[in-house]
Amino acid sequence: MTPSPYDQDLPRNAANHAPLTPIGFLERTAEVYPHRLAIVHGPLRQTWAETDARCRRLASALRAHGIGKHDTVAVMLPNTPPMVEAHFGVPMAGAVLNTLNTRLDAETIAFMLDHGEARCVIVDPEFAPVMARALALRQRTEPLLVIDVEDALYGPAAQRLGTLTYEDLLAQGDPGFAWEMPADEWDAIALNYTSGTTGNPKGVVYHHRGAALNALSNILEWDMPKHAVYLWTLPMFHCNGWCFPWTVAARAGVNVCLRRVDAQAVFDAMREHGVTHYCGAPIVHGLLVNAPAALKQGVPAGIKAMVAGAAPPASMIEGMEQMGFDLTHVYGLTEVYGPATVCARHEAWDALDIGERARLNARQGVRYHLERDVRVLDPDTLQPVPWDGETMGEIMFRGNIAMKGYLKNPQATADAFRGGWFHSGDLAVQYPDGYIKIKDRSKDIIISGGENISSIEVEDVLYRHPAVLAAAVVAKPDPKWGETPCAFVELKPGAQVTAEDIVAHCRAHLAGFKLPRAVVFGELPKTSTGKIQKFELRKQAGSAQAIDV
Amino acid sequence: MTPSPYDQDLPRNAANHAPLTPIGFLERTAEVYPHRLAIVHGPLRQTWAETDARCRRLASALRAHGIGKHDTVAVMLPNTPPMVEAHFGVPMAGAVLNTLNTRLDAETIAFMLDHGEARCVIVDPEFAPVMARALALRQRTEPLLVIDVEDALYGPAAQRLGTLTYEDLLAQGDPGFAWEMPADEWDAIALNYTSGTTGNPKGVVYHHRGAALNALSNILEWDMPKHAVYLWTLPMFHCNGWCFPWTVAARAGVNVCLRRVDAQAVFDAMREHGVTHYCGAPIVHGLLVNAPAALKQGVPAGIKAMVAGAAPPASMIEGMEQMGFDLTHVYGLTEVYGPATVCARHEAWDALDIGERARLNARQGVRYHLERDVRVLDPDTLQPVPWDGETMGEIMFRGNIAMKGYLKNPQATADAFRGGWFHSGDLAVQYPDGYIKIKDRSKDIIISGGENISSIEVEDVLYRHPAVLAAAVVAKPDPKWGETPCAFVELKPGAQVTAEDIVAHCRAHLAGFKLPRAVVFGELPKTSTGKIQKFELRKQAGSAQAIDV
Repeated sequence: MTPSPYDQDLPRNAANHAPLTPIGFLERTAEVYPHRLAIVHGPLRQTWAETDARCRRLASALRAHGIGKHDTVAVMLPNTPPMVEAHFGVPMAGAVLNTLNTRLDAETIAFMLDHGEARCVIVDPEFAPVMARALALRQRTEPLLVIDVEDALYGPAAQRLGTLTYEDLLAQGDPGFAWEMPADEWDAIALNYTSGTTGNPKGVVYHHRGAALNALSNILEWDMPKHAVYLWTLPMFHCNGWCFPWTVAARAGVNVCLRRVDAQAVFDAMREHGVTHYCGAPIVHGLLVNAPAALKQGVPAGIKAMVAGAAPPASMIEGMEQMGFDLTHVYGLTEVYGPATVCARHEAWDALDIGERARLNARQGVRYHLERDVRVLDPDTLQPVPWDGETMGEIMFRGNIAMKGYLKNPQATADAFRGGWFHSGDLAVQYPDGYIKIKDRSKDIIISGGENISSIEVEDVLYRHPAVLAAAVVAKPDPKWGETPCAFVELKPGAQVTAEDIVAHCRAHLAGFKLPRAVVFGELPKTSTGKIQKFELRKQAGSAQAIDV
Repeated sequence: MTPSPYDQDLPRNAANHAPLTPIGFLERTAEVYPHRLAIVHGPLRQTWAETDARCRRLASALRAHGIGKHDTVAVMLPNTPPMVEAHFGVPMAGAVLNTLNTRLDAETIAFMLDHGEARCVIVDPEFAPVMARALALRQRTEPLLVIDVEDALYGPAAQRLGTLTYEDLLAQGDPGFAWEMPADEWDAIALNYTSGTTGNPKGVVYHHRGAALNALSNILEWDMPKHAVYLWTLPMFHCNGWCFPWTVAARAGVNVCLRRVDAQAVFDAMREHGVTHYCGAPIVHGLLVNAPAALKQGVPAGIKAMVAGAAPPASMIEGMEQMGFDLTHVYGLTEVYGPATVCARHEAWDALDIGERARLNARQGVRYHLERDVRVLDPDTLQPVPWDGETMGEIMFRGNIAMKGYLKNPQATADAFRGGWFHSGDLAVQYPDGYIKIKDRSKDIIISGGENISSIEVEDVLYRHPAVLAAAVVAKPDPKWGETPCAFVELKPGAQVTAEDIVAHCRAHLAGFKLPRAVVFGELPKTSTGKIQKFELRKQAGSAQAIDV
């Protein structure tokens, strides 16, 4: 068989093929819109040309310190300008950006610095004390370049960890540094540790191709226009801010930085800078919805919000609508660059009542534009479950929005990708319209008398109680049933409710075997990204007082 | 040196890597928005689910006829539903779509069918007669599957060329056909012949990756929202409609088909279907601007138009503004998938007078979002010209929005990509803001007494004369100067102007040596895409009557 002419003499070359990389977004924006605003931080106003020059300085200074291709640069930074710049300057040097969760303890940080083989760490003054302890715990003996950020909005640092400040480092760099494209779009761009609740955190490695494609998908899902004004309520350390540092660069938009999320600061920023877009866990949106009306005066209409981490309850959807905000529900995991599904809305939903709208919007939805596939599959056979809204399976992803794998952990990588799908560990159903709805994490499912109980289903009912601010349900060991549901409930300020009231409310909506057999009131433990820490609750569930239902 | 851990145990696999392809856009849209409108054609209303099923039928029927990976399927179709469907159904079969220019003569069509080794041809009834002649001239003896399209909007075909209609073919296919992703995103998806004015047309081969990325770039340049309503004024045979069949699918938009562009039909469609976007050569926009006011009544405000092929003159920009249309100027060539630069606008321009605005918007601008680079380089040294708005060089592209190469023409491919850049053949300058402005095609430059004269510069001045509808300037051989500019001018209906008036107008804006030494009035010859055919004018220039300037 003669080969096809389409296979002959038509190779890739420098003229018709270039690696996909989000760094290119900064390059183009700095060329086309050099004088537009890129970063706002307190009184700072920094243009895209200035940002590009600073990122090139960072890259060239790192190179001068011997840090280059596939070296790890760790950063422990809040949502400040150096954090935005690190998303470009570090990969411009060929290095890999490892953003550390700023709520971590010293032991975990030390583990990550060792495991990720960091060659440099850049630290905000707020986190200098914990980083000092981490550096002392570090076991690797290779030299580590420690860079202290100074930030007038924080105030003077309690201590200096290294000999160079961030501005010193940039002053050593070349603003015209001719960085090179990655040799291969499969090269690593970032390292993000999962907040594994058992065992050591796993290091999720992102590649340039995926980062670029998820950054573009963000634009597509949101119809995000050029020059959008993006408020940094979502931590950039979390899945690289769902890839939004790169998205905002692609849109020649504005990064409005924020050291700390509180309602006053958020509404002030929205008014002052004309914010058009922001993201966050439900707790962030809840904070805004539940803020005093006076704080909301004069906030621009039509702000677009993205929520992930848990399905938005009806009260949140209603509250957002009352503020004139437009809420998009997305879902994902660290391994898929943050969000990789979206609950794409349909015009027909607008006519439905709030309960039905909330039910539809609470689903995790459909694949992101540039992800190949998201499906609920039987975890053993990898066959699709029927799209009946009832049969449970595991959410699996495949395509370009999935990590390279776990760093130095081939077994975990192989397990995660078994059968050519990324196994999310989330149990879900698929509705007749193809939309996915999470029922539980594999490990969160409660098995009572042989029946599966979705903790999320019980939580959804709890959230519908008007006095409930937050709720979580975990398994409580039971001598008779094996496990029973134990509800942890955080009430709205001033609310007065008994455990019996809560169970009575549940009884109206749930089958008997799904009713909580214990109700514990109090503030819920949350991660730095606003997720409720069920593993903490599980420790308490055993000793929770059982009630008769 | 030990290899980096980022290079170990982190390979591509089916879970974390998928070929980029625009076919995936249809798949996702049909899943997420199955009941939304995809195609309008006369009374036809076809949803995305129906369109997806028909494309799968087409792919599976082609396969049943033995047409698969890297086989060429030629189509000779106006902007009708089968043309939209061919953009998905043909590559779903693994085959390569070769859209034929519907204004071509039988000899040229026969050449393309032979050179492209077409295995199938799909023909609209309007073009059955010319295709019949082409089939008779074809030299290859391999069997060719000929499919006759029927279209009630055209009327009964004068003749049938094959034994199967398009609907017969689809009836043979499987609406659930499980098409496969291309094995490699570098696989060919389309074959587009250039309208070479000398020698045989060259076959430009597009790949899946480039088609997907240019389709996405269209969205980014235009801030094109979900569910945009796109009117097909640009022929889909021209660079695959600048990749917009794939763009519209990605946006879950509406394809409003149109067999023929005239002002009444365009304005009717805009009103009836709520058109939001359309593209075309200047002639298309001019047709609308110059239409009687009565035709424009009730046309929606804010329609976005894209123009390429020549810079929009001030009168067109003003006319578009008066209609409430928003005009974006783009530039490209067949080899770069249609447009690959955009004259990105800046808010500051809004405050300028129309002359200055037109001057800025007449530039070809900056690279498309997902193209790596566009530069004006010295064609010999490949060094960038100074960004002074004066030094001429050749526009060169590199990155993902460039063809695989020319089919069965390795020498032309190597020449086009010499030095790692695609050589456009267009001469241009680069302004201090990085924006590119075409001065001429290499072959269109006029050399008079040793001085270079940009034919485009003279044409721009001619277009500013209020009586001029269209103008073109070519070299006229001259015994003294070598060459002198010869102007061909098409006047607006009813206009009365002399050659002397035209030259006097030019004298006010041009150096003496650039003045036309001959002015010929009459309709200008244009290609099917609205480009003026300078090679025809060159034949006439020699005998044009010289005038004293």
